[in-house]
Amino acid sequence: MAALENFPTSVGIVLYPGFEVMDAAGPIEALNCLSEVAGENKMTFSIISRNLDPLSPGRNKFTAAQQYLPTHTFETAPQIDLLLVPGGWGSINFLPGSESNNVDDYTAYVRRAYHGYDEKQPLKFVMSVCNGTILLAQAGLLDGRKATTNKDFFKEIAQFGPKTHWLGRARWVADGNVWTTSGVSAGADGMLAFMSELLDRDLVTKVVNMMEWRRAETADDDPFAEIEGTHDILPKTAG
Amino acid sequence: MAALENFPTSVGIVLYPGFEVMDAAGPIEALNCLSEVAGENKMTFSIISRNLDPLSPGRNKFTAAQQYLPTHTFETAPQIDLLLVPGGWGSINFLPGSESNNVDDYTAYVRRAYHGYDEKQPLKFVMSVCNGTILLAQAGLLDGRKATTNKDFFKEIAQFGPKTHWLGRARWVADGNVWTTSGVSAGADGMLAFMSELLDRDLVTKVVNMMEWRRAETADDDPFAEIEGTHDILPKTAG
Repeated sequence: MAALENFPTSVGIVLYPGFEVMDAAGPIEALNCLSEVAGENKMTFSIISRNLDPLSPGRNKFTAAQQYLPTHTFETAPQIDLLLVPGGWGSINFLPGSESNNVDDYTAYVRRAYHGYDEKQPLKFVMSVCNGTILLAQAGLLDGRKATTNKDFFKEIAQFGPKTHWLGRARWVADGNVWTTSGVSAGADGMLAFMSELLDRDLVTKVVNMMEWRRAETADDDPFAEIEGTHDILPKTAG
Repeated sequence: MAALENFPTSVGIVLYPGFEVMDAAGPIEALNCLSEVAGENKMTFSIISRNLDPLSPGRNKFTAAQQYLPTHTFETAPQIDLLLVPGGWGSINFLPGSESNNVDDYTAYVRRAYHGYDEKQPLKFVMSVCNGTILLAQAGLLDGRKATTNKDFFKEIAQFGPKTHWLGRARWVADGNVWTTSGVSAGADGMLAFMSELLDRDLVTKVVNMMEWRRAETADDDPFAEIEGTHDILPKTAG
């Protein structure tokens, strides 16, 4: 049996100015290691943005020096099976003093990709990291689902998904084909949990050992729930 | 007292084709968070390579889609106080079938930067991640020092530093101003340990919580030593 038989091989990430480096790099590192240890060469990766301009994370001069190149625009993006949606200051437009990056066009792409558009099939899986959940919530993908997000700003971000059951103690949550993870580093744990659902255990262990990742083995191994004092937020009922 | 008074504010990383994503992104994420929570805007970052061509990590078509832009060449690099040296397939030229990237020019830059050159002051600190130790060893910076490296390929990499005491169980090692860390994810733990030496505890806690990083609190919290069966390798004595 081919090692990647059940795994989505066309992976994409939406990247916008002000993304968080590790939100992207954690899952990407795990996928890079998988592409190495699987001993096949059939995985592809696309970095999708509103245009092909270089993108910087963060929001200060230190992060501005870091520049990443997209491979595709929303219009030229290929068929994607697994879409990663990182968080970062760039998707936050509700905090005083923060500069909105206006990610409405990203939200629109995520919605279209999830459901399928033009000649494209629907996504098989989508995974947000940290406050990338804002884009999923605004795209309507979290309505009626369980989800989590980063533990600081937990309440503020939950307001974007009033029809969502937000889990206050979760390193990651899977509800159907929609995966959400807690903040920043939790993205790698979420991706490893995702791999564990679809791949042989030995293969995932190889990825973990290559990364030397001190893994959260279970979703509730989330020390930042206690540190930040987060609790479940239930969906608001109508009326 | 200024929060960053004792911290090296001119940070650089040498980046070569075939670097490992998380080797770079782990320490960078911690530094990005520090630049955010310190409430100052005096940290600068430089990405230094042999030329300004975009750089990809790894060694297959999946990683080739990921491209990062250097900010400086060896010739144009500014004064650096803290230099990061990531590992990756690109610095390995001893494994059968691997394609050497010939990082001799990187090794030469690391040696010159460490000792100071032209109008440049010596580095205040250097930190390698994973098999970035190969560059430090070849630059002579590990002679007579204690160091560690990634736990797979531990013995193979230790051969590059015959005058080094290689610690088989260490998430990171500091010897003078030369820091070395274990593989990939250990780079973030090493950077957080480095910050803990130079910054107020509260500031480092803010960085850890922002990253939601499940931190190795002590250097010997290294589960991969047991998994890979690594032991100390003592320096070879002459004769």
